[in-house]
Amino acid sequence: MSNSIKVFSPSTVANVGCGYDVLGFALDGIGEEMVVTELSDDKMVILENDKFDLPLKPDKNVASVAAQALLDAAGIKKGYSFAFDKQIHPGSGMGTSASSSAGAVFAVNELIGRPFNTHQLVEFAMEGERMLSGKAHADNVAPNLLGGFTLVRAYGPLDVLQLPTPDNMYVAIVHPQVVVKTTDAKRMLKQTVKLDQAVAQWGNVGGLVSGLYESDFGLIGRSMEDHIVEPVRKLLIPLYDEVKAKALEEGAIGCSIAGSGPSIFAFAEGKATAEKIKASMQAIYDEVGILAYTYLSKIGTEGVRVL
Amino acid sequence: MSNSIKVFSPSTVANVGCGYDVLGFALDGIGEEMVVTELSDDKMVILENDKFDLPLKPDKNVASVAAQALLDAAGIKKGYSFAFDKQIHPGSGMGTSASSSAGAVFAVNELIGRPFNTHQLVEFAMEGERMLSGKAHADNVAPNLLGGFTLVRAYGPLDVLQLPTPDNMYVAIVHPQVVVKTTDAKRMLKQTVKLDQAVAQWGNVGGLVSGLYESDFGLIGRSMEDHIVEPVRKLLIPLYDEVKAKALEEGAIGCSIAGSGPSIFAFAEGKATAEKIKASMQAIYDEVGILAYTYLSKIGTEGVRVL
Repeated sequence: MSNSIKVFSPSTVANVGCGYDVLGFALDGIGEEMVVTELSDDKMVILENDKFDLPLKPDKNVASVAAQALLDAAGIKKGYSFAFDKQIHPGSGMGTSASSSAGAVFAVNELIGRPFNTHQLVEFAMEGERMLSGKAHADNVAPNLLGGFTLVRAYGPLDVLQLPTPDNMYVAIVHPQVVVKTTDAKRMLKQTVKLDQAVAQWGNVGGLVSGLYESDFGLIGRSMEDHIVEPVRKLLIPLYDEVKAKALEEGAIGCSIAGSGPSIFAFAEGKATAEKIKASMQAIYDEVGILAYTYLSKIGTEGVRVL
Repeated sequence: MSNSIKVFSPSTVANVGCGYDVLGFALDGIGEEMVVTELSDDKMVILENDKFDLPLKPDKNVASVAAQALLDAAGIKKGYSFAFDKQIHPGSGMGTSASSSAGAVFAVNELIGRPFNTHQLVEFAMEGERMLSGKAHADNVAPNLLGGFTLVRAYGPLDVLQLPTPDNMYVAIVHPQVVVKTTDAKRMLKQTVKLDQAVAQWGNVGGLVSGLYESDFGLIGRSMEDHIVEPVRKLLIPLYDEVKAKALEEGAIGCSIAGSGPSIFAFAEGKATAEKIKASMQAIYDEVGILAYTYLSKIGTEGVRVL
């Protein structure tokens, strides 16, 4: 068994419109590469990265925290170094912390001979999320590890479902360079919702799940409607309504906020339509001089993998 | 074309645990027969029934109200008589009013040469529900007309989805003879819900829809959990917790309240298990001397049909 491994961990988008805190999907080939190497002692070491200012203390970095949770459960005392090469800037809403948590537990599990299955890895990766936000979310780490669309049906016990991915389904994403903190985005949400809005939302979640099984893009688009989270969180995203209207005009199946933002994603049938949408999103921010990165990807049906 | 028609309209169960106001399913062979006959003038006539005390005024009976909505939309001035033979006692929570609304619009549509499709019939049948409760619900009339499991994804515009029915899926139902008025059952529900409870509920709706597609009875059962409606409505149903616990002990996939109650339904894989559950539900009410009717049915994949 090698004492070093290189893995690719995809970026992910949580919520998917109506599915706040439960739905998510993985991108294809967009994410981060990690090199995880066994050390001679039982310390965790985060290798410095000149591109991004990542936490270097092992108890503050999601990768080492998640990996430690796995090692503790396995009763193994070992140390590892973690080196990251991220394509996506942290703070995008595209699950950059989750991809490190997921990549770390996947890599360490490989290095120690795979004692845990993928669903167990989700639980360990959630410990990275818990350290970061105080709550052990799974809506990003689940698609990270399983690939495709996932539904976190319940916590306690954790019940994560893999949903089908329609053929030829693409996503265009724009990441305007404004700072939205996950904690702020959470705080803005009211802790109670009207019953009729909640009913509309669970009608949509049911519709979206059905749409994925049926590969019915019209149904997927109609079902993405979100009356609870989007109206609040879009306030932090400049030109959100304009970007969404333009994406739909260019043929998007549906458009919403990636995770807690500020990235905006739009689904499209086929790569050509997704390209057009991506360009039109970019143009809106270019025109007003807001720096924005754009991405285009198929829905990624693979989770974290060895490179 | 005959000027009289006899139809069978199945009973239905709305909500299905987690899916308050959106999910429902039809029974197989349990419901009501209706005879609808064209009259020589444009009056509606409800024929008296010595078994049940149904409203005889055409503007107070759901069947004539729903049929009139259809005729108005078609621009046709005709009168019909409606005769009912119901197997289920009204006030059961098993959609007895919806089955009359749905049966009436289906029958009249047949008699005038089928100008409307099934989804349009749902909209007309909803007018019967509106007259009764003040709100044009579709969660019972949708499975009534379409059969199987249905999801009312949205109103305005109405978006009704048909979901798959797993093979060998049965339901046992007990109807304890206590009176629960739909209006009371609605009033008891709080008009706001906690966000985290709403999230848990839409996770379950997504899980239930996935479970139906996957024919995964374990997932269906886990997903039926309802933290919003059941805790309130079960207060009106004597021995609810005991009946549910017994049903699950006897092998039920899941158990919850039929519509707004007081009937309780339990899903089972296979007829033999459903029979055992039905008998055990009956025994609980027999023991304390509460009159209760029980029913056993496959999930009915057919909606209203001509006899």
